[in-house]
Amino acid sequence: MIAILTNSIVKAIQQVVGNAPVPLHEPRFAGHEWDYLKECLDSTFVSSVGKFVDRFEAELADYTGASHAVAVVNGTAALHVALCLAGVQSNDEVLIPALTFVATANAVAYCGAVPHLVDSEMHTLGLDPLALRDYLKDITEISEGQCINCLTNRVIRVLLPMHTFGHPVDLEGLLSVARDFHLTLIEDAAESLGSWYHDKHTGTFGRMGTLSFNGNKTITTGGGGAILTNDAELAQHAKHLTTTAKRPHRWEYVHDEVGYNYRMPNLNAALGCAQLEQLPSFLASKRRLFEQYQAAFKDIPDVQIVTEPNGCRSNYWLQTLMLDESVAGHRDDILTATNEAGLMTRPIWKLMHRLAPYQDCPRMELYVAEQLEQRLLNLPSSTGLI
Amino acid sequence: MIAILTNSIVKAIQQVVGNAPVPLHEPRFAGHEWDYLKECLDSTFVSSVGKFVDRFEAELADYTGASHAVAVVNGTAALHVALCLAGVQSNDEVLIPALTFVATANAVAYCGAVPHLVDSEMHTLGLDPLALRDYLKDITEISEGQCINCLTNRVIRVLLPMHTFGHPVDLEGLLSVARDFHLTLIEDAAESLGSWYHDKHTGTFGRMGTLSFNGNKTITTGGGGAILTNDAELAQHAKHLTTTAKRPHRWEYVHDEVGYNYRMPNLNAALGCAQLEQLPSFLASKRRLFEQYQAAFKDIPDVQIVTEPNGCRSNYWLQTLMLDESVAGHRDDILTATNEAGLMTRPIWKLMHRLAPYQDCPRMELYVAEQLEQRLLNLPSSTGLI
Repeated sequence: MIAILTNSIVKAIQQVVGNAPVPLHEPRFAGHEWDYLKECLDSTFVSSVGKFVDRFEAELADYTGASHAVAVVNGTAALHVALCLAGVQSNDEVLIPALTFVATANAVAYCGAVPHLVDSEMHTLGLDPLALRDYLKDITEISEGQCINCLTNRVIRVLLPMHTFGHPVDLEGLLSVARDFHLTLIEDAAESLGSWYHDKHTGTFGRMGTLSFNGNKTITTGGGGAILTNDAELAQHAKHLTTTAKRPHRWEYVHDEVGYNYRMPNLNAALGCAQLEQLPSFLASKRRLFEQYQAAFKDIPDVQIVTEPNGCRSNYWLQTLMLDESVAGHRDDILTATNEAGLMTRPIWKLMHRLAPYQDCPRMELYVAEQLEQRLLNLPSSTGLI
Repeated sequence: MIAILTNSIVKAIQQVVGNAPVPLHEPRFAGHEWDYLKECLDSTFVSSVGKFVDRFEAELADYTGASHAVAVVNGTAALHVALCLAGVQSNDEVLIPALTFVATANAVAYCGAVPHLVDSEMHTLGLDPLALRDYLKDITEISEGQCINCLTNRVIRVLLPMHTFGHPVDLEGLLSVARDFHLTLIEDAAESLGSWYHDKHTGTFGRMGTLSFNGNKTITTGGGGAILTNDAELAQHAKHLTTTAKRPHRWEYVHDEVGYNYRMPNLNAALGCAQLEQLPSFLASKRRLFEQYQAAFKDIPDVQIVTEPNGCRSNYWLQTLMLDESVAGHRDDILTATNEAGLMTRPIWKLMHRLAPYQDCPRMELYVAEQLEQRLLNLPSSTGLI
């Protein structure tokens, strides 16, 4: 029986992407990448100052509708700085999905704070605002305008949802929870450039949002990330913190707080500018790929291709197959069969509390996240596959 | 009187570098930069995996004589990871120069540790081992193999000298202090690629050494750095920590400690490989520039060009003018006159305890560092100026 299922899955993927070895996600450089890199070299400005950094920031802000974008070395750095700017301090707690890439938890740890793990919902694959509200009602109290975890006596400072594989979370629900429980909302939009919740870009609902341009993302700068915000002062402070907190002066070296060397180099921004120009065509390609996977899988029982949440437009960064509960136990068979056929697939991440550094983190019941952990796998998703 | 001095200095610099506006330090791309960037794009491997990263690491190890080099996003990240690997913990102290770029202190702060500021010596511009030994004798005791600061009751874990402007510190003296006081020696060699202490490259004497390839350094990768070590296990651990501490697995996401997203992207390493090929010619150019400055300044009273310490070969990264005490009060007049003439000069950094985040750090008497702070300025130093 399971051989029939794995065989059908392999054939369905091959039907869409062909037979050759196919990676999970590789970038595509079909625009002005070479021109801009050459222009960058010729200018000699390859490092933390240069016109491509400024341009990339302006174009990111323009595309997402955020008032400001600050370009940094990667998405983890963006998250770290956003948490610092939200006032996260040592021994605070930050609410994050149990089901996320480890960078979300790491950024919290860099602040000396503690990730507090929250359950997901089936439909968005992201934080569940209803379950979270009930949970917070039970374990927290508001004292002097701060949300206190009564079980740990720590301040819960930030609510940090992540848009899984580009699918927007229920932002309306989470904004409401954040408001009622005095939490700052920061969106980990590392995976969701080009994803819209209703008519507004992900990453622009919270006080700050963060993007990633790692090599496996929808657009890449080699390594890179950005902080989005509508607050001019926060943007200014983000830029300051990411450039060693140096105050402008003709020649003096005055750094007025503990700063970071997190600025995106101009060389990487040059690549980013070229990539951003192609984003609309990348998104169209990813949507076509989704449609073809959906067609190829529609007659296979016990599995389905994950679709964007209602009212949202996902970037379909990584195409995702959801197994029915009845076959979830065969996830590894499917991973083995597809990878052996040269079709790179992978499971979703392990829940954060299964990792040694986060095993003791506070967490709510993770009914849905535990299901999703067993039932989701990603299919080859490169831009330009079809 | 001072007008005569500033005028002589402006003329001496112009005599060497010409009249046009001259920056302090700009990179030079005269080799295979473009070829390698193009090759990198064509491979689609622009991010944290790729052959240029491996090659850059192998060539750095080969050049410096270190057994291993691990390439990271910048020199600050290299220092941070080196301190983590040396076991620096929250509330430890790390001995650093009072006179350094702020990144040295920041990396200590990232560990939750406290920079402890040490005086410099005139000749090397770096840590003074004799003064440090006397000071440590007074304030520390060894308990259970650890160096305890009796004034603060904190463990002093690491001794972290920096090779100022490329001039090697007294490594023999500092190694002896480290041994006698149970300190791990880590070298901040951010400025000293191509600098040799006797017949061995800086950054290879300590348990680890760190390099920087920022845009203003002798060679650049846009942004970049590296950790050097002769210990295979440390190198392996450094690579692990800088790549989110992910354990190798066919598809599972297991991260076994709090890791960092610090790996150098392949795109930046491609630039680094091309730059490294030109390092010998860059160093020759810098030495010629030094000689010409020395000739141009030899008849100007009250100032002198800083020369490499005895028995050392400096990379002469930044050319440095030392003012006699008698004219140190006119430093800002000289900075103004030179910068107004389009010749970019700058003072050395402010001592770390003058910066708000480090004002309360423990420190010894800083007799020499306070002198140097007033008396040193950097002259235009780009590779290829002559």
